[in-house]
Amino acid sequence: MEFQSKIKTIEWIDDYSKLIDQTVLPYEFKHVNIKTGDEMYTAIKDMIVRGAPAIGIAGAHGVALYALELQKQNLSREEFISKMIEKADYMATSRPTAVNLMWACKKQKELILNSKSDIAGIVKELIENGIKLENEDIEINKKMGDYGAEVVPKGATILTHCNAGALATVAYGTALGVIRSAYAKDNTIQVFADETRPRQQGARLTTFELKTDGIPVTLITDGMCSYFMSKGMIDMVVVGADRIASNGDTANKIGTYTVAIAAKYHNVPFYIAAPLSTIDRNIKSGKEIPIEERSHEEVSHINGKIICAEGINFINPGFDVTPNELITGIITEKGILRAPFEESIKKAFEES
Amino acid sequence: MEFQSKIKTIEWIDDYSKLIDQTVLPYEFKHVNIKTGDEMYTAIKDMIVRGAPAIGIAGAHGVALYALELQKQNLSREEFISKMIEKADYMATSRPTAVNLMWACKKQKELILNSKSDIAGIVKELIENGIKLENEDIEINKKMGDYGAEVVPKGATILTHCNAGALATVAYGTALGVIRSAYAKDNTIQVFADETRPRQQGARLTTFELKTDGIPVTLITDGMCSYFMSKGMIDMVVVGADRIASNGDTANKIGTYTVAIAAKYHNVPFYIAAPLSTIDRNIKSGKEIPIEERSHEEVSHINGKIICAEGINFINPGFDVTPNELITGIITEKGILRAPFEESIKKAFEES
Repeated sequence: MEFQSKIKTIEWIDDYSKLIDQTVLPYEFKHVNIKTGDEMYTAIKDMIVRGAPAIGIAGAHGVALYALELQKQNLSREEFISKMIEKADYMATSRPTAVNLMWACKKQKELILNSKSDIAGIVKELIENGIKLENEDIEINKKMGDYGAEVVPKGATILTHCNAGALATVAYGTALGVIRSAYAKDNTIQVFADETRPRQQGARLTTFELKTDGIPVTLITDGMCSYFMSKGMIDMVVVGADRIASNGDTANKIGTYTVAIAAKYHNVPFYIAAPLSTIDRNIKSGKEIPIEERSHEEVSHINGKIICAEGINFINPGFDVTPNELITGIITEKGILRAPFEESIKKAFEES
Repeated sequence: MEFQSKIKTIEWIDDYSKLIDQTVLPYEFKHVNIKTGDEMYTAIKDMIVRGAPAIGIAGAHGVALYALELQKQNLSREEFISKMIEKADYMATSRPTAVNLMWACKKQKELILNSKSDIAGIVKELIENGIKLENEDIEINKKMGDYGAEVVPKGATILTHCNAGALATVAYGTALGVIRSAYAKDNTIQVFADETRPRQQGARLTTFELKTDGIPVTLITDGMCSYFMSKGMIDMVVVGADRIASNGDTANKIGTYTVAIAAKYHNVPFYIAAPLSTIDRNIKSGKEIPIEERSHEEVSHINGKIICAEGINFINPGFDVTPNELITGIITEKGILRAPFEESIKKAFEES
């Protein structure tokens, strides 16, 4: 049974990319039309679009937008290709942690380098590839959802952290895709959403998209998970991923690692839901994943108002790395990968 | 060496109790003069004064305020005593979790029942006892601070959760008292303060009081502790307590238990700092500690503004219980108690 979500986060329309503006949710539900590569770079950097899979597609669209701009400049085919490679590499730097962004920009770069077409042809191919990746993302999410739904106990309460939902992908979600598929089979399940400070994606986005789609959701603060686990009120945890190393170590939104430790302590199954494109086979372990240090104002301010004394210190790592020993399984479009992850990940790619 | 703090949270002045209004910190630093028992009941309930030791003293002051009121009613000594017992019992119900409140109200009740004086004499004795408990609280904190400072490594970074500081006591603090005493000996130590959602006492109060007293403090969000522990950036954890069972299980602000699990996973020492009055020897384990369920708006709103979708669900337990197996030691005015806690707690009371 397929769950019908009301949310489409990113969509290519003719010659621009249409995004849900996630910086104003849940107060306002509005779209922005991104018409240049630089606008897309800023949209990714400022988190108008966020979530590893979504910013991958956004990056691919952004490269296509640069192509549309450069097409107007009367460049030679060689000059066009050379500039486009620069632009694709630049687009890949708009956020540092998510590997999907590098992956999608690389896909566009390969297309440029391998194309036999003229400039107009390459532009057309980049746009078509952007749309193809967009559609594939939805299909991949639905496959992941189906695999993941199989391990959700009847009537389960599922804890999630941050937003790995439709709003983090094109339309269906990774962690919340699993929840959507599970809910389509069993509408007695419910979700606990971690607020996810500092940026509150759980409070702002996850509660919004689950409420929009009619799935019961309870908001809790980030420190509460252990309490509810100790009371037997959480049956499993499912979260997304920003980058997964070859050994299964998983970078995800700051706070994920704390939830994983709490889950281990209470023997609550802890799942990652992520497409294979989130797995970075170039790195052996989580130690090699760069952790983005974000603005201190994300910690010190909420809705524009300071929440602490002035003149103190801040640190704001955007992500943390959950070691593979805390992970029950990685739900992918090729099935659920389990320990030892080096082997199961290798096998999943061999089958791809 | 003694640390001089600039903060006096609660102070009896002639015929009223002077409180720092903690609901407006860190934006405004102002006092409220509490002149009736009912005003004190509300001040405790609405958290104008909060923190287990401080609300104990507030309760004692509140009982004295009721006595001042009843003294004006031309009651017989018998009627006065009977009404005062009711008032003391009522005052003890203004918050449900902190045992210090029950302890302090019971101390006042015992005084009333044992006094040989007339009404005016009892009133005077209740006021004097309130002031005595106030001064004892400072002395107890300083003793705890000295014991605790001995286990703080040189140059340590100490994580704390919520506010167990001068603002949670009369003037010096329990967990932050340990930090004050440690800082007086070694000014290279520093503090990481958990924001402590939902009410953000770490952000609002702990950063304010440490900044006021010149101790370096870094604000982090509640999910971040594990990340910093994994990087070796946190050397120990010290938190306060709202109630400790005979076996050492400790109720403290929601989120404490999560920090304790993370500390255990990283082999970071985890200390409770609390006076013996926080230990409830009537209960065997943490399972018997009632957990206050607080208003859902504390979760859904920050500074009056909603932070999530409307129409979703909330749960807001105010406290959690950290089991004794996660606790390295309980720092008290009688020294640091260690496992097995049943024995070390029993012994500390026998010596009292």
